[in-house]
Amino acid sequence: MNKKNSNMEEDKLHEECGVFGVYNHPDAAALTALGLHALQHRGQEAAGIVTFDGERFLSEKHLGLVSDHFSRPSVIKRLEGNNSVGHNRYSTTGGTVHRNIQPLFADLWGGGFAIAHNGNLTNALSLRYDLVKNGSIFQSTSDTETILQLVAKSKADRTIKRLVDALIQIEGAYSLVILTNKKLIGARDPFGIRPLVLGKLDGAYILCSETCALDIISAEFIREINPGEVVIITEEGIESINPFTKTQSRPDLFEYIYFSRPDSVLDGKSVYDCRKSFGKVLAKEFPINADIVVPVPDSGVPAALGFSEESKIPFELAIIRNHYVGRTFIQPTQSSRHSKVKMKHNPNRSSVEGKKIILIDDSIVRGTTSVKIVQLMRDAGAKEVHLRIACPPIMFPDFYGIDTPETEQLLAANHNLDDMCNFIGADSLGFLSLDGLYKAMGYPKGRDNQNPQFTDHCFTGDYPTDLKDYNDKNLQEQLSLLSDNEAST
Amino acid sequence: MNKKNSNMEEDKLHEECGVFGVYNHPDAAALTALGLHALQHRGQEAAGIVTFDGERFLSEKHLGLVSDHFSRPSVIKRLEGNNSVGHNRYSTTGGTVHRNIQPLFADLWGGGFAIAHNGNLTNALSLRYDLVKNGSIFQSTSDTETILQLVAKSKADRTIKRLVDALIQIEGAYSLVILTNKKLIGARDPFGIRPLVLGKLDGAYILCSETCALDIISAEFIREINPGEVVIITEEGIESINPFTKTQSRPDLFEYIYFSRPDSVLDGKSVYDCRKSFGKVLAKEFPINADIVVPVPDSGVPAALGFSEESKIPFELAIIRNHYVGRTFIQPTQSSRHSKVKMKHNPNRSSVEGKKIILIDDSIVRGTTSVKIVQLMRDAGAKEVHLRIACPPIMFPDFYGIDTPETEQLLAANHNLDDMCNFIGADSLGFLSLDGLYKAMGYPKGRDNQNPQFTDHCFTGDYPTDLKDYNDKNLQEQLSLLSDNEAST
Amino acid sequence: MNKKNSNMEEDKLHEECGVFGVYNHPDAAALTALGLHALQHRGQEAAGIVTFDGERFLSEKHLGLVSDHFSRPSVIKRLEGNNSVGHNRYSTTGGTVHRNIQPLFADLWGGGFAIAHNGNLTNALSLRYDLVKNGSIFQSTSDTETILQLVAKSKADRTIKRLVDALIQIEGAYSLVILTNKKLIGARDPFGIRPLVLGKLDGAYILCSETCALDIISAEFIREINPGEVVIITEEGIESINPFTKTQSRPDLFEYIYFSRPDSVLDGKSVYDCRKSFGKVLAKEFPINADIVVPVPDSGVPAALGFSEESKIPFELAIIRNHYVGRTFIQPTQSSRHSKVKMKHNPNRSSVEGKKIILIDDSIVRGTTSVKIVQLMRDAGAKEVHLRIACPPIMFPDFYGIDTPETEQLLAANHNLDDMCNFIGADSLGFLSLDGLYKAMGYPKGRDNQNPQFTDHCFTGDYPTDLKDYNDKNLQEQLSLLSDNEAST
Amino acid sequence: MNKKNSNMEEDKLHEECGVFGVYNHPDAAALTALGLHALQHRGQEAAGIVTFDGERFLSEKHLGLVSDHFSRPSVIKRLEGNNSVGHNRYSTTGGTVHRNIQPLFADLWGGGFAIAHNGNLTNALSLRYDLVKNGSIFQSTSDTETILQLVAKSKADRTIKRLVDALIQIEGAYSLVILTNKKLIGARDPFGIRPLVLGKLDGAYILCSETCALDIISAEFIREINPGEVVIITEEGIESINPFTKTQSRPDLFEYIYFSRPDSVLDGKSVYDCRKSFGKVLAKEFPINADIVVPVPDSGVPAALGFSEESKIPFELAIIRNHYVGRTFIQPTQSSRHSKVKMKHNPNRSSVEGKKIILIDDSIVRGTTSVKIVQLMRDAGAKEVHLRIACPPIMFPDFYGIDTPETEQLLAANHNLDDMCNFIGADSLGFLSLDGLYKAMGYPKGRDNQNPQFTDHCFTGDYPTDLKDYNDKNLQEQLSLLSDNEAST
Repeated sequence: MNKKNSNMEEDKLHEECGVFGVYNHPDAAALTALGLHALQHRGQEAAGIVTFDGERFLSEKHLGLVSDHFSRPSVIKRLEGNNSVGHNRYSTTGGTVHRNIQPLFADLWGGGFAIAHNGNLTNALSLRYDLVKNGSIFQSTSDTETILQLVAKSKADRTIKRLVDALIQIEGAYSLVILTNKKLIGARDPFGIRPLVLGKLDGAYILCSETCALDIISAEFIREINPGEVVIITEEGIESINPFTKTQSRPDLFEYIYFSRPDSVLDGKSVYDCRKSFGKVLAKEFPINADIVVPVPDSGVPAALGFSEESKIPFELAIIRNHYVGRTFIQPTQSSRHSKVKMKHNPNRSSVEGKKIILIDDSIVRGTTSVKIVQLMRDAGAKEVHLRIACPPIMFPDFYGIDTPETEQLLAANHNLDDMCNFIGADSLGFLSLDGLYKAMGYPKGRDNQNPQFTDHCFTGDYPTDLKDYNDKNLQEQLSLLSDNEAST
Repeated sequence: MNKKNSNMEEDKLHEECGVFGVYNHPDAAALTALGLHALQHRGQEAAGIVTFDGERFLSEKHLGLVSDHFSRPSVIKRLEGNNSVGHNRYSTTGGTVHRNIQPLFADLWGGGFAIAHNGNLTNALSLRYDLVKNGSIFQSTSDTETILQLVAKSKADRTIKRLVDALIQIEGAYSLVILTNKKLIGARDPFGIRPLVLGKLDGAYILCSETCALDIISAEFIREINPGEVVIITEEGIESINPFTKTQSRPDLFEYIYFSRPDSVLDGKSVYDCRKSFGKVLAKEFPINADIVVPVPDSGVPAALGFSEESKIPFELAIIRNHYVGRTFIQPTQSSRHSKVKMKHNPNRSSVEGKKIILIDDSIVRGTTSVKIVQLMRDAGAKEVHLRIACPPIMFPDFYGIDTPETEQLLAANHNLDDMCNFIGADSLGFLSLDGLYKAMGYPKGRDNQNPQFTDHCFTGDYPTDLKDYNDKNLQEQLSLLSDNEAST
Repeated sequence: MNKKNSNMEEDKLHEECGVFGVYNHPDAAALTALGLHALQHRGQEAAGIVTFDGERFLSEKHLGLVSDHFSRPSVIKRLEGNNSVGHNRYSTTGGTVHRNIQPLFADLWGGGFAIAHNGNLTNALSLRYDLVKNGSIFQSTSDTETILQLVAKSKADRTIKRLVDALIQIEGAYSLVILTNKKLIGARDPFGIRPLVLGKLDGAYILCSETCALDIISAEFIREINPGEVVIITEEGIESINPFTKTQSRPDLFEYIYFSRPDSVLDGKSVYDCRKSFGKVLAKEFPINADIVVPVPDSGVPAALGFSEESKIPFELAIIRNHYVGRTFIQPTQSSRHSKVKMKHNPNRSSVEGKKIILIDDSIVRGTTSVKIVQLMRDAGAKEVHLRIACPPIMFPDFYGIDTPETEQLLAANHNLDDMCNFIGADSLGFLSLDGLYKAMGYPKGRDNQNPQFTDHCFTGDYPTDLKDYNDKNLQEQLSLLSDNEAST
Repeated sequence: MNKKNSNMEEDKLHEECGVFGVYNHPDAAALTALGLHALQHRGQEAAGIVTFDGERFLSEKHLGLVSDHFSRPSVIKRLEGNNSVGHNRYSTTGGTVHRNIQPLFADLWGGGFAIAHNGNLTNALSLRYDLVKNGSIFQSTSDTETILQLVAKSKADRTIKRLVDALIQIEGAYSLVILTNKKLIGARDPFGIRPLVLGKLDGAYILCSETCALDIISAEFIREINPGEVVIITEEGIESINPFTKTQSRPDLFEYIYFSRPDSVLDGKSVYDCRKSFGKVLAKEFPINADIVVPVPDSGVPAALGFSEESKIPFELAIIRNHYVGRTFIQPTQSSRHSKVKMKHNPNRSSVEGKKIILIDDSIVRGTTSVKIVQLMRDAGAKEVHLRIACPPIMFPDFYGIDTPETEQLLAANHNLDDMCNFIGADSLGFLSLDGLYKAMGYPKGRDNQNPQFTDHCFTGDYPTDLKDYNDKNLQEQLSLLSDNEAST
C-alpha cells in the first residue's frame, strides 16, 4: 500500500507490509500471529488478522507491534476459525488512520472478502477516480481498497473471475492474500516485484511474504508463488491460474539488499549469503588498507563479514546497537552535541581508538545517518574512516511499496561521489557497482540490459510499469477529505 | 437507526438518537457538543461530531456520554470549522461496533457528505440488498448508510437532487441533518415521525431534535421543520423544498409521553404541560380515594403533579431516585431479596408507611419494573397501592427508532387489565385511554380515526408506513458477517 | 478527610466521604460495592474496598464513580473474603493523588489494618509534625494516616488498646470503619459530628454512614453508633466501649440540610421529613403572595413541597435538571450569554411565563448560583422572583469534613440581607432562622444555647472542638512535598 | 532490590535495576530519561524519575520500558527542576506492585528524600522485622525501603550522618543514588558488588550504573565511585567519605560476563574486550576442529569473535535473532514441534547445513535454552555441534540483585560435565575455567584465593557477606499481606 513519506525519522528505506494466510488449520489465528511476528521487520505500525469460522468473519486490528496485542490469549480466542489472513503495516510518521489497517474487509454480493496487500499500485488513484464517480464509497485512503471495489463492481458470476476482472485493471506491485468463506487466494503481480511463498503445516496450506515466517511455525517450504500466478486453495486442494500475458519477471533487488530477513530464502537464494557476497564483491571493487572492518549494525553485518573474509582485514563489532528503540525522546536543549544517532548506536571505543576503519553500510538514502556515524567513529578516536556501501547509489524514488524520499532528498541523485564523500566526512567512499550487484547475485555477466533479471529502478530509473498516478498531477490530490479520530477512543 | 433489542437492562422504551447541526458559527463544534449534551437523554451509547473547516472534514466519534469526550478542549480544538453536524446514539446492551457511530461520512463524487439520522427506516434492508448486488460496499450495519449509498449512486448532477433521489426511495422515520462542503441540510420524513427544529444564534442557523438543545446555547427558536420538508442552508441563506406528495403529518405520540425532555416544546406544545394534562385526564378517568400521589421518578413526576392537582390528593416524593446509575453491579448471590430496582429507587418509608398510595408511571412495557416498584411500596408499609399509567396499554412493537421488545414480551399485548393488575400486584390499575390521551393533547373530540393526528401504532397497530423489511423474512438476516474489534485498541 | 477547596466548580457545599463495612458475609465485596454506590452522593472522586480473605488483605482503589470500576465482576472477584471495608472520596477539583484514596492500609506489628474515615481532624498536622520528627514515614497527605501512624506507634499490646491510644490523641470529626485480620471496628467521635449506623443482613453485621446504604442491600437497621462509641465486631459477636469522658453529642445539622440522602433516617428522623418541615417553617417565617412555588432541583424539592403545603401555593417543577452532568464543557467564546448554569438547569418556560415565583433552595454559599438561577427565571418570563432559603445564612467555614470556601467568599459573612438580595437580583430574600431550624427539627423551644443539640458552627461560629491546626499558622504548610504521577500509568 | 523468581520466561540470569542521577543541569529529567534508556538492559519492568525543582519533588513512575512513557514531552515537562534521580526496574514475571517502583520517596524530618537502588540487601527482612515492631509503616515490599526507614529513624542531626547510620546497619549489594532538597548522593557497598560511575556534562555531575549512560548524553567519564564510598554533591561541589572499615573490593564478575553493555567500561576494562578475551581463553582451553564458529546472539557474539580469532575458524552469524520480542505468544496447540526458542532465534540454514559447528554462549543457567538451540542447529543440517560456554558452571544462587533460580534448577549444580553434555545433546561441551576467567580479566595468575579480586559466588559459593535473611527461615515470610490493585486504574 501507499504514500510517500518525506519525514522519515530514520534515514533508511522502509518496507511497507507483510502478509500471511492459513487455510484449514485449527490454530489458524495463533499461527498467523506468529507468522506476522516473524514478518515484523516489514511493518511496525499496525497489524490485523481476519479469520473465518465457517459462518462469520472475525477481525482484530491494532496499532502497534504484533506482540503488543496479538500475543494476548483473549485476542486469539476471539479469532475463531480454521482459515485466517493477516497483515503487518509499516509505520509512517504522521497519524495513522485506523480504517487503513489491513486486512480490509467487505461484504460483497457473494459473501465476505478480506484482503491483505504487500506492494503499491501505480494506477490506484486513476481507478478510484472513476469508481467514486460511479457511486462507490471508499472506506479508506488505501490503494488496496481499489482492488476491493473493483471486485465488488465486477459482473462476473464467480469470485475468482471477479478477482481476475480486478487484477487485469490494476498496475504496480502486489502480493495479495485473500480470504473468502470458501477459499484462501494468493496472487502476485506479473513482475513478481514483492515476494510471496507457499508452505505447508500439518496438511494446512500457508501463504506468506518470506520463508522466515514458515520457519517460526516449523512449516515446510513448498515453493514461491510465481509472478503473475493466482493460487486458489479450497477444501479440494490447491489450483493455480495465470491470467496475464507472460512477461519477464523482475523481483525487487531491495528485498535482497535490505528488506527481507537474512534468514529468509528468496527464489532459492539465501538472503544472508547474497549480502555476504555483496561485501565480497565490494571488497574487490573498492579495496583499502585498514585495521578493522566495522559494520553499521544490524543490517551491515553480513556484508561486513563478506568484506572481512575477502579482504582478510579483521571484523570487529565496534558499534553497539541499542535494541530498545521506539519513540523519539526529548533532546536536552542545552547541549547541542547530543544527537539522535546515539539513541541507537554507541561506539566501542577500545576497538576503535587509533585504528583505520572500514565502515560497511547496506545503502545510503539521504546520507544524514552516514554523516553522524562517521563522526561517531572519529569522536571515538578512529584515525581513518573509509565508508563502503553494499549497493549502488540510490538515484530514483520507488513507487512499489518502499517508502523513499523525493528525488531532491536522495543524496546520490544530487551529488557526485566526491561531493558525497565530502558531505559524509569519510576519508574515502565506495559503492558496489550495479554489475557487481548482479554478479554477487549469481549472474557472472552482470545485468542483462535487454531483459533485466530484477527491477532495479532506484538505481537506474528503469521502472517495470507505467507510473500513471504519479504522472497525472491532477490525481495527486487525495480524494478523501476526512481527517478522523475514530480510533482515539 | 436500527435494531430490536430484546435484552433491555431496564424495562423502559428507549429512544434511538438525537441530532444537531450548526451552519456558520465560529464555535460550531463547542455548540454542537453542548447541544448533544442537552440531547443526551435521546442516546447514551456513543456520540460523534463532524465539522468542515473550509477544506477538510474533521471527525470525532466516541463511545460513552457526550461529556466523557466532547468536554475535552483537545477534542473540540481538533474539530475546526464553522459548520458542524453531531449525533447521539442510543445504548444497546450488546457490544457496539465503532463504525456504526454517526455521523456517517463518505467522499462522494461531489465532495464530502456527513449524515446524522434520528429514526429508523422500514425498507433499508430491501434497498441494501439491491445495492450490494450492484457493487456497493457498506461500511456499517446501519440503515442510515443505505441513504448514503443511494445518494452516491444517484446520477443527478446536484447534491440536493441526489439527496431527493435517495429520500423518495426510503420509507420510515427520519429526521436528518447533513453537512456537505457548501451546505447544511435538514430533512424530515413525510409523516414527521421524529422531531426536528430550526433555531438561530448570532446569525448562525441551528438544526436539532428538540428545543432544549437550543436553550442550552441560548439560541432563538425559529420554527419546526415541517413533515416532508428539506431545508437547505447555505451562505446565501435558507431555502426549503418538499419533494413528497402531501400527506397528513403524524408525529409520534411517544415523544410527548416519554422521550422528549419536559422542558422542550414540540409543535407548539410544552412537553411538561402535556404530561401534567395526561395526569389530570387520568385522574378523571380512574379516580380513587387515597392518601398520597407518588410518582415513579423522574419520568412520572409531571403526570403525578397533574393527577394530584386534579384529584386534590397530596403529591409526595416518596420514591427517591439515585442518579448515579450506569453499569449493572454484581448482585450478592446469597440474599435473593436484593433486586436491581433498589439500585435506582428507594422508598422514603416515613412518607409511605400506613398510607393508601396512588403510584403514577409514564408507561408499562413488560411490567417487570412495575412489579418491583409496587412491592417496594408494600415493603415500605403502604396499605394500598393503586397504579395509574399516563398512557394507553402498549400492544405493538415500534419500527421507527424506538427500541421495543417483541410482541410476546409486551405485557399489555398478552394480558387483559385484570391479569395485568394481578401480575403487577397492585390493588388497582388504570391506563389513560387513547381518546383521553388525544384530549389531553388538545383534541377535545379525541382521536380522528380517519386521519389520526399522531402516529400511535404502539397502542393501535396502525403503522403509518409499510413494514417491508419486517414482512420479508428473508431480509432479517444481517448481510454483514464481520464481527470486528477495531475499536478495542 | 481533609483540605479546603476554594475553587469549587459548583457553588455548593461538598461532603467529604462515605464509609461502609461488612463482617462475615460471603458476598462482602459485592455488598460493599452496592453500599458505596448508595453513598455515592457523599463523595464522587474515588472509591476503594479492602477485604480480608482469612490470610491476605486485598485492595482495589480507583478514581471515578463506584459504578465505573466496582460494578465489574473481575474487580469484585479479586476482592475475596467475608470481611470488607470501603470508602467513597469526595472530588476536589485539583488533581488527586492516588495514595490518598481510602481505605488506607498498613502492615502493623499485630497484622494488617485497613481504615476508612468520614470527617476531618482538627489537630492532624500538629500530631503529624511530631510523628515525622520521630521517624514515621507518611504515605499520604491525608489526616486519616495520622490515626494509622498513632496506632502503629502505640506500645499497647492489643489492637483495641492501641486504637484507643490513638483516638484519645485526635480531635475533630470522625466516623471510622476499620478492618483487621480478626475484627471489624466502628468508631464515632465524642460529638458524633458525622453519622454512623449499624445494620444486619443474613446474620452479618454492617457498618455504614447512612441507612440508605442498608436499604440497597435489604439489610435491617439495628441502631446508630453512639457518639464516642467504639464497636468491635468479631466472630464472638459485637461488643462496645466508650473511652471518652461523657459529653453532649452534637451531630452536624448539615447532614439534615443538605448532605444525607432524603431517604435516609438519621437519629430517628427522616431526612425528607426534616426538609419538608424546613420548608413549612420557612413559609411561616417569610410568607409571600405568589403564583407558584418552584424548587431548585434536586436538593430544594422537599423544602419546596413543604413550603407549598404550608402556603397553599401550587408546587411546580418549573426548572428541569439535566442529570447527565460531569465534566465542564468548553464554552463558546463568542456568545457571552451562555452560562454554565444552563448545563444543569433549564426553565420550563410555559410554567414560568408571567408568574410570580417563590424559588426554594437549600442553602446559599457564595451566591453565584443563586444569581444565575434568578436570572434564568426572569429570562423565562417570571414577573417576580422571591428567593427563600431553607437554612440560616452560612457565615463561618467548616473544619469537620465539609468543603467550604474561605470566609471572604461566603456571601452571608460579608453582606447584610438587603445587600444579598440586591446581589442576587431577587425581588425578596428570606432565610430560615436558626431557631426555626431547631424547631423544624423537633425542638419547640429552638436552640439550647447552653447545650446546643447540634453543631451549627457554619451559622454561629460555635465550633465544638479546638481548631489547633487552623490556629497554628506554621502548620498550614503541607509536609509532603512530593507531587507525583504514579497513578497516571 | 529483591526476590527470587523461579519462573523466568527465558533461561537467562536477569539483572535487577539501573540507576541514574543528575545534579544542577537545566535538562535534568530529559538527561535522566536518556540515561535510563541506555541502561534499559538492566531492567525492563518499570522506570521512575524524581526531580526537585527547588521547592517541590516531582515524581513519575510507570510500568513498561523507559521509551513507553518517558519519551513523552508532557511527562518530561512535568518533571521540573535541575536535580534528578531515576531508576530502571527488572521485570519479574508475576504481577508487579506499583508502589515498589523506584525511586522510593519519603518526607523525612529534614525534608524530601528520594532513593534509587541497584543491588539487593541480605539482611533487609531482619531489619524490617524490628522496624515494624517499633511502629514503622512500610509502603512497599522492597528491601530499599528498609534503608529509607532506617534513615527516618536515625537521631543524627544531619542528612549524611543519618544516611551513614543506615548504611552501617545494612548488608549486601547496593549502588545508591539519593536526591534530597540540597544534595545528590551516591553510595556503593564496601565490596563494590554493583557498579556506579561519576560523569560530568556542561559542569553538572552525573551518577549512573554504567558508562554507556554517560555516552548517550555525551557526558565525560570522571571516575568510578569506590567500593564503600559515599559521594555528596552539593552546590559547593563534590565531597567524599568512606564510613566503612577498609575491605578488599569484590565487584561482581557477572557484570563483565553478561549484564553490562559491551560498550561500557567497568573499572578501566572494556566489557567488549573482556568478553572477546573470554572467547580467546576458551578457545585455548577447549579447542576443537570445526568449520565455523557461531554465536548465540546477541550476548555470545563478542566471545565468538574472540574464539574465532584465536582458533582461526571462520565466524558466521548463522543464528538470526528477532529483536521484536516481548510478550509470550499463544503457542499453537496441535503442532508440538513449535518451540518458543523460534520466537527469538532462527538458523540461517545455508550457513549451517553440512557443517561442523562451534556454538558459543555466554553462560548456562538451567540449560533448557541450550537444548533447544543445539536442536535448532541439528534441524538446520549441522553435522556436529560443539557447545562452548564463556564462563564457568553456575552452581550457586545469587543474593545480590541477580535473579537466579533455586539451586535445584541450576543445571551445573546437579550434573557433571558429561551429563550436561548429554542433556543438552551437544557433541561436546566446554566451560571457561575459573582461573581462565580471571586470566582473561587480566590476572595472569588467575584467582587470588586468599583475597579474591571479584565476587564469583555463583561459581564458588564464596559469598562476600553473611546471608542473614536467607538463613533465618522465619523471615522468609513476607510481612506485607496486602495484594493491591491500586495501579490498575
